[in-house]
Amino acid sequence: MERKFSNEELEAMDPEDFRSIARRGEWTGFDLNVCRGYAQANLAIVPKDYAFEFLLFCQRNPSPCPVIDVTDPGDPHPKLMAPDADLRTDLPRYRIYQNGELIDELTDVTKYWRDDLVAFLIGCSASFDWSLRAANVQFRLIGAYASNIQCVPAGRFHGPMVISCRVVKNGHDAVRAVQISSRLLKVHGPPVHIGDPAIVGIKDLYHPEFPASSYVAPHREPSEIPIFWGCGVTPQKVALESKLPFMITHSPSHMFVTDRLGEELAFI
Amino acid sequence: MERKFSNEELEAMDPEDFRSIARRGEWTGFDLNVCRGYAQANLAIVPKDYAFEFLLFCQRNPSPCPVIDVTDPGDPHPKLMAPDADLRTDLPRYRIYQNGELIDELTDVTKYWRDDLVAFLIGCSASFDWSLRAANVQFRLIGAYASNIQCVPAGRFHGPMVISCRVVKNGHDAVRAVQISSRLLKVHGPPVHIGDPAIVGIKDLYHPEFPASSYVAPHREPSEIPIFWGCGVTPQKVALESKLPFMITHSPSHMFVTDRLGEELAFI
Repeated sequence: MERKFSNEELEAMDPEDFRSIARRGEWTGFDLNVCRGYAQANLAIVPKDYAFEFLLFCQRNPSPCPVIDVTDPGDPHPKLMAPDADLRTDLPRYRIYQNGELIDELTDVTKYWRDDLVAFLIGCSASFDWSLRAANVQFRLIGAYASNIQCVPAGRFHGPMVISCRVVKNGHDAVRAVQISSRLLKVHGPPVHIGDPAIVGIKDLYHPEFPASSYVAPHREPSEIPIFWGCGVTPQKVALESKLPFMITHSPSHMFVTDRLGEELAFI
Repeated sequence: MERKFSNEELEAMDPEDFRSIARRGEWTGFDLNVCRGYAQANLAIVPKDYAFEFLLFCQRNPSPCPVIDVTDPGDPHPKLMAPDADLRTDLPRYRIYQNGELIDELTDVTKYWRDDLVAFLIGCSASFDWSLRAANVQFRLIGAYASNIQCVPAGRFHGPMVISCRVVKNGHDAVRAVQISSRLLKVHGPPVHIGDPAIVGIKDLYHPEFPASSYVAPHREPSEIPIFWGCGVTPQKVALESKLPFMITHSPSHMFVTDRLGEELAFI
C-alpha cells in the first residue's frame, strides 16, 4: 500500500490530504516536514480514570506537554484541531504501551480503541520550524533525548523530560530562535536549555535516542550552538516510568497533522 | 477582630503577612491593591469527581481561567504558589455554591472542607496592574461583568465568560496595555475586546456586576478607551449556570495572594 512521495509533494500537501494517505497506509514514515506551515501534534491516549492526572501532569509541565485539544471519552475526533480527522487511523504510526512496556507498534489503532479512552493532542516543535525558516534562522534538527530534568509529577505520572535539540548557526540565530519559539507556547514555547548538552544529561548529541533523520553530521564551527526544547515524546517516557496500565501514543517523529497553522497558535 | 490598615500599609505588606491578617479575620475587605507586585489568584474548589472536567474547562478557556496551581485532593496547601498558605483560611472572604445557588459567604471555610476537594488557583488580572503601573500606563479598573461571550464548554461546565474592564487614557496606552498583558498569560493575558462595551453585551459600563470599588466616575474624554480582559470570576458564573452540586470560591475582589511576583509568571 506504501506509495512514493517527493519531499516537495509532502511539503505542499494540505492536512486533510496528508491524513488521508496516512489513513490508507500509503505513508507510514516520518512526517516532520509535511504540510508546510501547519501545526503538528503529539498524541497521548489514556483511560478516563487517568485523564485528570494526565491533564494535570500536562498543566504542570507546559514546556514538554502543551495541550492543544482533548477529546471526550470514546470520541476519536479532535473537535478543536481537526474535527473531521480520526485519531485512530490518521497518524502514520502508533505505539501501544501496557504496564510500562511497549507492546506493539502499528499504523492503525482501531482494534485497540475503547469507549473509555481520552485522547490528548500536545503541540509539536516541528510546527515552529516553519516559523524559524520563515525568519531565515539557520538550524538543523538533530533529534530528541531523555534528559536529566525531572518533570513535576502529578498523581501517578512522573518521569524525565524528553527534550529536542536544534543546532543553530550562531549567536544571532540563537537569539532569534528564543524570540520566535517564545511566541509559540502551544508548540513547546521557549527553550529549556542553551549550550553544553552534558548539563541536561545528554552524552552523545549526535546519536539521539529519537533521531529526526537517519544521520546528522556533527557541528564543526565554534559559532554553532545547540538549543534544547521540551518534547512531546515526554508522555511516552512517563508511561514507561509510571508503569501505566494502558496508553496509545504516536511513534516518535510520526505526528498528527492538524488543520491549524502553527502561527494561528502563536500568542503574540 | 477587624483592624484598620492604610492603603500604604496594605501595599507594602508581603504575602505571608497579608495572608496572616486575612487568616485572623483582621482584614475581610477588597484586596485588589495589596502586596505590591505579587500575583493574586482567584479560587475555585470542586469535588474530585468534577476535577477533570473543571481542569479541561480551564484548559479550553485560558483567557478567563489560567490555572497556576492545583492541589491534591483534600490538601489545602498550594504547593507551587505558596506552600505555607492554607486555602481554607487565608483569603479575606469566600462564597459557597450548592446546586447552582449561592448559599453562604464567609471569611473561613474550614467547616465546609472535605477530603475529596481539589482547589484550583486561577491567575488574576489585579496582578498585571502592577506591570501596567510600572510602565506608566494610565488606567482605571472599573469592575467585572458577565459578557455575551460563551465559554467553550467541558463536560458539565458551561456558561458566559466574565470579563473585567479597565479604561485607559488613550490609544498609546491601549497599545502598551495589549503588549504588557500579552506577556502575562498566566494572569489572563491579552484583552478579549477593545472598544464598544455593547458588543460584548455590557449595557452599563459604570455599574459593573462586580465593582472594583464603591464608585467610579464615567470617562469624559473621547481619547479614553475601555479594554476588556477575561476574569477569574468566570468559574462562579459557571457554577451557577451549570448547577454544580458544590463549589467553594473566593468572593469577587477578595483574592488569594501568592508568594510569586506577577513578573515571575511572565512568559517573555
